[in-house]
Amino acid sequence: MENIQEMDRLFNPASLAMVGASREAHKSGTLFLKSLLSCGFKGKLYPVNPTETEVLGLKCYPSVLDIPDEIDLAILAVPARIIPKVMAECSQKRVKFAVVHSAGFSELGPEGKALENEMLAVARQGGVRVIGPNCMGLYSPGAAINTITFRNTSMNEVGPVAFAGQSGWVTENVIEMGYERGLRFSKVVSIGNQSDLTIEDMMEYFACDPQTRVMAFYVEGIKRGREFLEKARQASKKKPVIVWKAGRSEIGARAAASHTGSLAGSGTVIDAALVQGGVIPARNLDEVIDLAAGFACPVLPQGKRVGLLVEAGGGAVAGSDAAETYGLELPVLSPESQRMLVETLKGIIPPFAGPKNPVDLVWAPAESSTRLFMECSRIMLREVDAVVMVSYSIFDEHFAQEAVRLRDETKKPILVVPGHATERREGMALLTRYGIPALTLPERAMKVLAAMVGYSEHRKQD
Amino acid sequence: MENIQEMDRLFNPASLAMVGASREAHKSGTLFLKSLLSCGFKGKLYPVNPTETEVLGLKCYPSVLDIPDEIDLAILAVPARIIPKVMAECSQKRVKFAVVHSAGFSELGPEGKALENEMLAVARQGGVRVIGPNCMGLYSPGAAINTITFRNTSMNEVGPVAFAGQSGWVTENVIEMGYERGLRFSKVVSIGNQSDLTIEDMMEYFACDPQTRVMAFYVEGIKRGREFLEKARQASKKKPVIVWKAGRSEIGARAAASHTGSLAGSGTVIDAALVQGGVIPARNLDEVIDLAAGFACPVLPQGKRVGLLVEAGGGAVAGSDAAETYGLELPVLSPESQRMLVETLKGIIPPFAGPKNPVDLVWAPAESSTRLFMECSRIMLREVDAVVMVSYSIFDEHFAQEAVRLRDETKKPILVVPGHATERREGMALLTRYGIPALTLPERAMKVLAAMVGYSEHRKQD
Repeated sequence: MENIQEMDRLFNPASLAMVGASREAHKSGTLFLKSLLSCGFKGKLYPVNPTETEVLGLKCYPSVLDIPDEIDLAILAVPARIIPKVMAECSQKRVKFAVVHSAGFSELGPEGKALENEMLAVARQGGVRVIGPNCMGLYSPGAAINTITFRNTSMNEVGPVAFAGQSGWVTENVIEMGYERGLRFSKVVSIGNQSDLTIEDMMEYFACDPQTRVMAFYVEGIKRGREFLEKARQASKKKPVIVWKAGRSEIGARAAASHTGSLAGSGTVIDAALVQGGVIPARNLDEVIDLAAGFACPVLPQGKRVGLLVEAGGGAVAGSDAAETYGLELPVLSPESQRMLVETLKGIIPPFAGPKNPVDLVWAPAESSTRLFMECSRIMLREVDAVVMVSYSIFDEHFAQEAVRLRDETKKPILVVPGHATERREGMALLTRYGIPALTLPERAMKVLAAMVGYSEHRKQD
Repeated sequence: MENIQEMDRLFNPASLAMVGASREAHKSGTLFLKSLLSCGFKGKLYPVNPTETEVLGLKCYPSVLDIPDEIDLAILAVPARIIPKVMAECSQKRVKFAVVHSAGFSELGPEGKALENEMLAVARQGGVRVIGPNCMGLYSPGAAINTITFRNTSMNEVGPVAFAGQSGWVTENVIEMGYERGLRFSKVVSIGNQSDLTIEDMMEYFACDPQTRVMAFYVEGIKRGREFLEKARQASKKKPVIVWKAGRSEIGARAAASHTGSLAGSGTVIDAALVQGGVIPARNLDEVIDLAAGFACPVLPQGKRVGLLVEAGGGAVAGSDAAETYGLELPVLSPESQRMLVETLKGIIPPFAGPKNPVDLVWAPAESSTRLFMECSRIMLREVDAVVMVSYSIFDEHFAQEAVRLRDETKKPILVVPGHATERREGMALLTRYGIPALTLPERAMKVLAAMVGYSEHRKQD
């Protein structure tokens, strides 16, 4: 792979050529250009189309060769058959990166594969590095680029999560569902057929990228298994690496072949190899997002003892069941800690809430619930490695800040399950953004925490 | 259990006494009364409190005995120690049903159990049937009663889903999360300690209730295992019965004991027994809601062959993997059906989308996407038992109506995974309300469909 500085240009281009933008509003090139304008892309923007003179108020050039500027990134959204010609112009222009959105390449079989090879050979002549073909491009909020969720360009906050995926649909959903849940992204790329730059290249880059704290991948097929595993293992030594390996079933593999032309392998075998390398496997979109929210927390648990602090008996039962399922321990608190909890809760909650673990606040009075949750957590964290809270309504800025303070003082993660649906969505996003992972269910919190414990143990072995 | 007509009164009381309402805004009794007023409860409403003369604009009575009317339902939200006295008054008044919200009974151990028995003995003297204690009461949208999600009283549409749960937190979340997802409820009850009326009673009632098409339960402990299984088996012969058995783990069972005073059993053993009786097991809130959305569909699949129709390659891969995981079949379509699909899609989608199954529309043009989805589904349904669609943006009223038409003509279920997060929430609710189950992920759609197939097979065995 290029060195890191080179790759930074892909995600932060000073100049961008949008090949295939036109007056036709529904064409991908036009939608992408519109998205770049509405994101507020700060670099120079050049529409390219031989049949237009102006698109969306910008001067349009017949070819990239006519642009009176260097081009860091060209996005190509034109029919597959003319891609080699356009790529030749990019090559001659010494464009640094080309994102080929167009489909109709190796995913079609041998004929498409030939076209893809032709395109690639032409790109190499001029040193153009290629993303795609058959992909949705980039989401780089720091540079105000978003061709992936181009219908929704309001997601402009930067954060610690990097993602690369072989499916535009999955990648779009990770961003949109994730953003709503409070995930904030450093860099995201829809990688398509991986004719040149691959998932493995992105692993290497994300591992070095200072903006990125956790990286996740959606992989349909792994072309060179050993290389993939080695890169994932290396990246895992630096940062958590989450991998959703799809195309696991026979039919899934068939679908993957015609989708991105990838060869799929047995999911179970691959998962086992990944886990051995410290990689965190995911099985679906929900898990990718939950795990990314967990690992976006800047501290890792140092053991598997968890304190469960709830404001709802049902949450205590569901959380306890899940802790056992995922191999976590809910130790009965020491008499000393139990005494401290009774003292803290005196006169506030009924005496029948036994502070053993789970600790049940029953229903903390709104005016003191943040204080109670924090004081009880502080006591529990004397002897557990993480706290999971199941609460009805504690998701304001003040709660988030207090939780951050406690987390940073104790260096132990705090996860929250906001138990009250109506106000939940906003609260979950708020907490997750602060690095206090918020999950919809106690089960999902325990699953994420168990993955964090596993990764933490793996890192200690190095 | 009472006969069905009697039980109908619980959920549709003509008169309701709210014992414990006061001028103190944060007290449960006041919150419940406020909720009943804001729901627009149409029966007669009588606040009861010896220290008030008027509450929220309503005349307040010193005791139920002072109310110049018969009382169908009394809700008791006063401290546990005075519950026997209040219950004695209810008994003398011949109140038909009492919901005891107050906690502090058998969940505390022997002393609390004695108080619970005392209360119950007093209730029996006057033939008062009791819900609770230690519960959140009722959500009966047809009668405009909602003491469960009392902070959110806007959920007034009636539908086919009944629910009873031993946890207020779970019950509240099923309603709120479910309603947002398009579930509409017939009757919901937070059953608490089950001192008198039990989950089993509700099974029996829901099975006969004409408003209810599918019933779901959250159970922490099963007191009389054989009776529970028998009731569940009987109810399953009439309608789908979904059971989330919590308190499965050792610590979960401990938490359940101090929560609702229930004895918990081994989850795995219980699940196996339930499945044998045709009951559909769920493991968490997400599954309860997903399954209820699936079974709210008025038709069941007659076999396990599924057609997967997508507008996103990633959805095809994830859906195929999941179909295999849950034991469904994705048969390759016959040459005849493939020919019909090619004909239907000619000139609309690129020729490289092979119509084998999964069928990939790549990206159907918005103006014809509903028509394409329906025509392709119709062809696929010639040889499959259900269709799962993974789409970007087809969730308007027109789409829902067309899907309903196709479902009713073919008598085969259609499930939809709306793949575009931003507009998804509203669309999912719309479809689910129409009996077109909408799920967030292909995996979740396949899991639900597999449960529907299983239940359908079970029903055929009868």
